[in-house]
Formats: sequence, C-alpha cells, structure tokens
Amino acid sequence: MRLEDYIATVPDWPLKGVQFQDITPLLQDGEAYNYAIEQMAKLAIEMKADVVVGPESRGFMFACPVANKIGKGFVPVRKKGKLPRETVSYTYELEYGTDTLFMHKDSIKKGQRVVICDDIVAIGGTLNATAKMIEELGGVVAGMICLIGLTSLPGVKKLEKYNLKCLMLNDVKDD
Amino acid sequence: MRLEDYIATVPDWPLKGVQFQDITPLLQDGEAYNYAIEQMAKLAIEMKADVVVGPESRGFMFACPVANKIGKGFVPVRKKGKLPRETVSYTYELEYGTDTLFMHKDSIKKGQRVVICDDIVAIGGTLNATAKMIEELGGVVAGMICLIGLTSLPGVKKLEKYNLKCLMLNDVKDD
Repeated sequence: MRLEDYIATVPDWPLKGVQFQDITPLLQDGEAYNYAIEQMAKLAIEMKADVVVGPESRGFMFACPVANKIGKGFVPVRKKGKLPRETVSYTYELEYGTDTLFMHKDSIKKGQRVVICDDIVAIGGTLNATAKMIEELGGVVAGMICLIGLTSLPGVKKLEKYNLKCLMLNDVKDD
Repeated sequence: MRLEDYIATVPDWPLKGVQFQDITPLLQDGEAYNYAIEQMAKLAIEMKADVVVGPESRGFMFACPVANKIGKGFVPVRKKGKLPRETVSYTYELEYGTDTLFMHKDSIKKGQRVVICDDIVAIGGTLNATAKMIEELGGVVAGMICLIGLTSLPGVKKLEKYNLKCLMLNDVKDD
C-alpha cells in the first residue's frame, strides 16, 4: 500500500506559501489507517515501548491506536489548562513567540521506555519538548514514530538522536 | 474489571464546584484502556458502524482506537481553523457564549452508518452538534459511545434518541 496516495496537499494553508499535508483522507480510509497503525506498532515493539506518548491533538490519532495495538498505556501531552493534576512543562520558541506543553508528573515512571507518536515532523519543536519532559520525569526516550517527515525542514535531522522513524519522507517545500 | 477505579475525581477544576472526572489514569494503564476500547468496539459493531467520528480532542482517544479495532475509518470533528478543506459547521450555545465545530464536507458519504465516540457526556452540546453535522452530510447516526455519562447533567437523557451508550454512569454533582 502506498500511504502517499492518501495524503492531500493543500496549497497556501494555513498561510500563503505553505503546502499543508492533510492526513484526513488517510484517517477516513479504514484500510490505509489500519496499515499505518500496524507499521507504527511494529516499530514501537522493536523499540521495546513500555508506554506511548502523543502530543495534542493530531498525535492522539496515532499514539492512542498504537498504544492499544501493543497493549500498553497512553500518555497525552497537552497545552495549557487541560491537565487537572500536577504537571511538568516545557517552553520552546516558535517563529513568533513561544509555546508551552504539559504532562502530568505521575504519567511516566522512572526508567520506563517511552515511544512518542505524532503525525508530521516539521521543525520538531513539539517532539523535542515532549522528549525533554519525558527525560525530566526519569523516562527513557526509546524512539519517535511519525507518519510524515518533511525533509525540507530541520526536524527530521535534529531528532535523529531520538531514534526518529517516519513512515513517509516528503521533500515538499514547506516554507 | 472495574473501570471506575481508573478515574480520578479532581475537585474544583477547572472551576470551583466542578468535580472533574480525569480519565488519564485509565489511559495510562494499558490493560484498562484496552478493556474500555474492546467494550466500545463491541458496541460499535452491534451498531453496524461504517465509520467512527470523534470530537476534538479527548474524543480522538476513543474514536481512533475503536475505528482501528473494527477496521473502519476515522473522521475528526474539529474547532475553527484546523481543517484545511471545505467544511460544514454547527454553532451551539454554551453557558456563556457559543462554540462552533467543523467537519470536512467529504468526510461522510450519504447513507453511511456513523458511530460517534467521546470521553464524557455532560451537557451533550458537542455530541449533539456532531450528530447534526453528520445528518447534514447525509449520514445516519447509528449510535454514540462514551466512557462516562454524568447522569446529574442533561446530556445522557437528551441523547437517548441517538442511541447513546456509556460504559460508566456517574451521578457525581458536576454543577
């Protein structure tokens, strides 16, 4: 199966000059979605995942079914004001301004092998922030698994050290 | 398995007087999360689902693995500015102000049997809005499946007509 056939490129969205990679046609197709999750689950097993983490909110679309497929728990990474108990946070720079992500303090146990799943790697800020919080909580980042890696942007290269695997690499200009 | 044991009640969050039902302990436990998804998947099969819909963003945590478990596609319901192609929308009243949800126009085919999954039914505004958009697109709402129904609030009663099933009913005061 060619997963590429299920990604729609939407020009100039959300900003002029951006070629947005829309994954909803893949999600809508039961066979293609299931195939992608199976490939991700195989990688997560190879990485010896104890738990699967996904960043809000497209990350949930991959991390949740992967966690289920391999019979492990799922931990959400969320934006401000979404997690009701004690949290750790990590602030990172965007092109304009900053963003902050949060995880519950009790979500990762010391020494747990953690696999992070997300839809698309572009700059890699979200994935890097997630890795930093996992490390702060005493977990080991065993790997990162994404549907698409945009090779024209720095994330794919930058996250090699975290054992990043992408089901598809895409050299579309995204700037 | 008693799913109730995996829900944390957080008092006075996000507002004073609210007993927030935190589902993250359930998600973090691979066995409990998998058990909940299996129960939901059984219901979705009984409802003869062709496709599974989930509202942003906790709905994704249930709709995505259920879709995968039954081998069907998943369609997200999202807030403003998240879906890049042509959409339908539905605006509904909140206690103060309104909220609007969106779905891609091509996400549901005419006559498809649609099952909506979400975490918690309180007022039922999100689920009702989702049903209205599905109907506008020509789909049939075959049922709604939620982890928790808060029986002290009007959603559970109001959504009976849409064949709502909850894995847990909870009469905690939430007002």
